[in-house]
Amino acid sequence: VESPEPLDSQISFVLEAGRLKTVLRQSPISDGSRRENSAEHSWHLALMAVVLAEHAPPGTDLGRVGAMLVLHDLVEIDAGDLFLYSSAAELARQEEAERAAADRIFAILPAAQAARVRGLWEEFEERRTPEARFARALDRLQPMLLNMQTGGGTWTSHGVTLEQVLRSVDLIGEGSAPLGAYARAMIATAVDRGFLRPAAP
Amino acid sequence: VESPEPLDSQISFVLEAGRLKTVLRQSPISDGSRRENSAEHSWHLALMAVVLAEHAPPGTDLGRVGAMLVLHDLVEIDAGDLFLYSSAAELARQEEAERAAADRIFAILPAAQAARVRGLWEEFEERRTPEARFARALDRLQPMLLNMQTGGGTWTSHGVTLEQVLRSVDLIGEGSAPLGAYARAMIATAVDRGFLRPAAP
Repeated sequence: VESPEPLDSQISFVLEAGRLKTVLRQSPISDGSRRENSAEHSWHLALMAVVLAEHAPPGTDLGRVGAMLVLHDLVEIDAGDLFLYSSAAELARQEEAERAAADRIFAILPAAQAARVRGLWEEFEERRTPEARFARALDRLQPMLLNMQTGGGTWTSHGVTLEQVLRSVDLIGEGSAPLGAYARAMIATAVDRGFLRPAAP
Repeated sequence: VESPEPLDSQISFVLEAGRLKTVLRQSPISDGSRRENSAEHSWHLALMAVVLAEHAPPGTDLGRVGAMLVLHDLVEIDAGDLFLYSSAAELARQEEAERAAADRIFAILPAAQAARVRGLWEEFEERRTPEARFARALDRLQPMLLNMQTGGGTWTSHGVTLEQVLRSVDLIGEGSAPLGAYARAMIATAVDRGFLRPAAP
């Protein structure tokens, strides 16, 4: 059996990747008219990486951040998107489904490239490098911005509590101190506006 | 009057940019179920820049290509998307509308950054650098891939002729010789499958 040309495999991957446009997230888009999909979410993050680049720690390789951000959600083509505030059991099942998806989807690429691209996805997931920490900070911040823009968004529609959001916000500061401070101030504003409330005692 | 903090202006820009998710293009998404929007299109191009990087001319700065691709359609928030095969008068009107949009949208950023980001958009439009030529090649190739994937796409739905597509394909080869050759072979397949026909004599 002859191997396909590298470019043919790469185009097959690009076409398969396009299915990410059909994966829906919980977040609303800016006018609240519909739910966001994972492809446009990934674009919004890549744009943030360009615009907010100066808030990454010095020496951060922003090209690698951008590559991680456009690739990071491809596993959702098979696994779907899971809401951040899901149960531990759901999160564990999701992790397994995403690993199986990575096995299938990245393998469409020529072998050496498949390994490199999968490595970028794993780097994002493991959050050990400054690039991954900055990318993950953007991924955590963006839905908060959409919630503020749409009068509460998933915080109000899913009854998310202030405590849940406060537990999730540290990850932003770990990727970028200024963005972490911005997110904390925004959460205070969200409380003032009634978008977030402490859990009932 | 006090100037806003740079980060506040940058976040305002990120929120305004999110409106690109509501701008519809003519191209269908992969399953043909709906039209693609300009945000997910921009993501698809940024992903192609990562996956097809080896087909850019040696020395191409792929970070700048990625930044151009995530920014290039923001002017459509005001100007809308115009189909590639429109009249010269429509294309001229669109150019003017996009310049006015650039004046408004990029000015949301802090002044020095606004000038840099606008410079990237102009670089993309003018197509004088290898980075801009590669980015434009991807932008031209991607809707052709979607047309092939959906059994003809806008070629059949808009009655595009083989001659029109052949005139538009040179731009791909000018950005990347291998991608130009790929696109020409794909057009031949499109003719074989009846997706493209010569204009009536």
